[in-house]
Amino acid sequence: MIQKVIENIDENRDAYVERLFELLRIRSISTDPSCAGEIRRAAEWTHGLFQNCGIKSEIVETDRHPCVLADSGPPMGGKAKGDGPTFLVYGHYDVQPDGDPSLWLSPAFEPTVRDGAVFARGSADDKGQVLTHLLAAEAWQKVAGGLPVRVKFLIEGEEEIGSPSLKRVLRDNAERLACDYVAISDTSKLDADTPAITYGTKGMIYKEIIVTGPKQNLHSGSFGGTVTNPGNALSQIIAALRDSDNRVTIAGFYDDVRDLTDADRARMAEVGFDEAAYQTSTGSISLDGEKGYTTLERRWARPTLDVNGLLSGFTSEGTSTIIPARAMGKVSMRIVPDQDPATISEAFDSAVRRAVPAGVDVEIVTHAVCGAYICPIDSPGMRAASGAIKAGFGKEPVFIREGGSLPILPLFRDILGAESLLMGFAVPECNLHGPNEFFGLSDFHNGIKTAASFMHLLASA
Amino acid sequence: MIQKVIENIDENRDAYVERLFELLRIRSISTDPSCAGEIRRAAEWTHGLFQNCGIKSEIVETDRHPCVLADSGPPMGGKAKGDGPTFLVYGHYDVQPDGDPSLWLSPAFEPTVRDGAVFARGSADDKGQVLTHLLAAEAWQKVAGGLPVRVKFLIEGEEEIGSPSLKRVLRDNAERLACDYVAISDTSKLDADTPAITYGTKGMIYKEIIVTGPKQNLHSGSFGGTVTNPGNALSQIIAALRDSDNRVTIAGFYDDVRDLTDADRARMAEVGFDEAAYQTSTGSISLDGEKGYTTLERRWARPTLDVNGLLSGFTSEGTSTIIPARAMGKVSMRIVPDQDPATISEAFDSAVRRAVPAGVDVEIVTHAVCGAYICPIDSPGMRAASGAIKAGFGKEPVFIREGGSLPILPLFRDILGAESLLMGFAVPECNLHGPNEFFGLSDFHNGIKTAASFMHLLASA
Repeated sequence: MIQKVIENIDENRDAYVERLFELLRIRSISTDPSCAGEIRRAAEWTHGLFQNCGIKSEIVETDRHPCVLADSGPPMGGKAKGDGPTFLVYGHYDVQPDGDPSLWLSPAFEPTVRDGAVFARGSADDKGQVLTHLLAAEAWQKVAGGLPVRVKFLIEGEEEIGSPSLKRVLRDNAERLACDYVAISDTSKLDADTPAITYGTKGMIYKEIIVTGPKQNLHSGSFGGTVTNPGNALSQIIAALRDSDNRVTIAGFYDDVRDLTDADRARMAEVGFDEAAYQTSTGSISLDGEKGYTTLERRWARPTLDVNGLLSGFTSEGTSTIIPARAMGKVSMRIVPDQDPATISEAFDSAVRRAVPAGVDVEIVTHAVCGAYICPIDSPGMRAASGAIKAGFGKEPVFIREGGSLPILPLFRDILGAESLLMGFAVPECNLHGPNEFFGLSDFHNGIKTAASFMHLLASA
Repeated sequence: MIQKVIENIDENRDAYVERLFELLRIRSISTDPSCAGEIRRAAEWTHGLFQNCGIKSEIVETDRHPCVLADSGPPMGGKAKGDGPTFLVYGHYDVQPDGDPSLWLSPAFEPTVRDGAVFARGSADDKGQVLTHLLAAEAWQKVAGGLPVRVKFLIEGEEEIGSPSLKRVLRDNAERLACDYVAISDTSKLDADTPAITYGTKGMIYKEIIVTGPKQNLHSGSFGGTVTNPGNALSQIIAALRDSDNRVTIAGFYDDVRDLTDADRARMAEVGFDEAAYQTSTGSISLDGEKGYTTLERRWARPTLDVNGLLSGFTSEGTSTIIPARAMGKVSMRIVPDQDPATISEAFDSAVRRAVPAGVDVEIVTHAVCGAYICPIDSPGMRAASGAIKAGFGKEPVFIREGGSLPILPLFRDILGAESLLMGFAVPECNLHGPNEFFGLSDFHNGIKTAASFMHLLASA
């Protein structure tokens, strides 16, 4: 039966791209309050896909953006004891802001094919990737009249704002979402030629530092040298958070970091990471970071601290000679096992407060706090995922870790008791969160075949 | 005759405010290319004022914004030998950007009277102040049929962008602008109750630092720890320019700073500077700056380095987890006698380049470079200015220095051989360059009387 399903997927290759385009055209930016209507439209589109192929689906409201819950029900043919292995597909239909439109070669919400890839915001993160599982389920439904395993779906609209409602949705629906594994496609391959399963992600703590000084912008001549400048103060604060070896100076920051074992380092060295290609993809003049670790070690297993945004005073063309009344810095940290998110969050605040010079006030807003995740790579689910990727992409996947954060992984483990299988189909340089985000059309196609095969392989796992 | 002129000025008190409003309504922001038409309208308005009261005037074109040159011609009654003392009124009709409109209690270009003051961009800097001299000349023309001294006028439209054309205008018109003194009202009183003459100003060097890293914004999870973040780099660079005593760390920065003598420090201590009122006017929680100097010493005689603006990455509400492709910082220094502007400008660039971490490029744009100014306080012109202020404001002025920069003062000295008399009529807390700039109506009125009296007193100096 899997052969027929795969044939059907091959036949629908172009039709599936049209379906993807429909979803990509929806401006579902979850950080932007003005996009609320488009967010709902994306949820309804997803809900409609399930309904149209006979999978029971429901739009579940939250305090902010709704999520879509669906359930294929018992598998075809049944099993001696219950439903057999069950998995939950998790994904999100919300997207990051598009940013400066002038940096996009084609508009962010007008999907455009170039060089065999579709360019659009959300193409890789995560509309295109999550859609592979939905279309695979649809193919099984159409070709076989049902799915070989029980598959549940949770597609949310708040991932890019830190999934504030997810905990409650999981708790409120723990029984109907019960599963053995969570299958997620929101990560990437190692490189264009090497499919991968991600078994560890970093956690994230996202802060906003607001420094206030004079009650309004002051003339920098008349008042210079007499009041503390919030712009200078912010620079000092941020600079104080790292040293010249690019190590974070926050007290206790590294205390609980799980050291890389020799085996870890050896495995990472063997992955075949193409450092030169990676550097080219960034456009930076060199690769740099914490002293004492390789690029891949820093990327996968070492905590980081990055400025995400700075704003103060006069930023237009030309000059304005002011002491700004305020300065704002967005700063996020990526943390690793076994750093405790709450401890690091507090330590950050303390470090910032200690670095504040006299004459200004500081406010620290915490936008997100989540822990890192790491899971075993030898479970039956992992083996099925690995086999499915080989079937879909024609190549065994490598097991990798990821610098990005999926705050939902610790939640699934804690509430559903399920480990996550992260099958990424996009390339790492797919510009997620930046301009010109893209998803390769063959990766999309192979992803659908992988998802269909995973349903097949997990059934007999 | 001066009595009749003063009486006439008193009679026209309200009418003059209407005239001021006309000029303030013109959006002559010289830094904003879209305001070119309004800039010209302000020049024509000024030109018209001269023409309507019989003073020869001409709009002189430059590469950017025109200036208005006018000349009263030989004084009434003549003199045994030539024209007697001649002075040049210098001022500017261009203004700073208005900035965030939401911070203005009334629109920046709709002059509004509150609490006995007119609130509008340019009310103090410099439209309201320069207008005092123009209206005084007009009053003499109307009441006496001429001026008691020869007065020339140079009103430009590029002061807020660093007067790029002024040098050439002065050189090209050196003979027709020849004068003994330059009278300028573009500074302020010591405080609301204490009129002042400024005998020294700081110079200014204005830089823009542009740090570039990755070719576009990158995901801070996937790429964190592997490339240098331009936002962190900019913070490090700016932080490296000052130490914890708020001293500038640029090599050689203080080498040529003219030390304050005991007499200088004593004179500043005697001025009667109200530190508490000053702090309240700023809204800062404390007054801070370079260690080892009083607030007034820092403000008048010590060099400073201030951030004027910062911009990098994601600055809207919420979060976006990016490593920004670039970061921009506008940083200006106020320099004092005898720091050499070109030397300090180069030293700044070297210090920035030394502070740049690996992995990013830096570009430094120099927007302005000008020297400090200081002049004798016992000249005949200074005595006439002092007497005129006493006549206009009913109180002897104090002699003060100013943290602001008037790049034109060294030019007048070098090209015209004339020292400048800086009679400031606005209060220091008049919010110049910030929102809610204002000019007291009685200061405006007393300023016109001062300007009229100065013409009278200089005639017999």
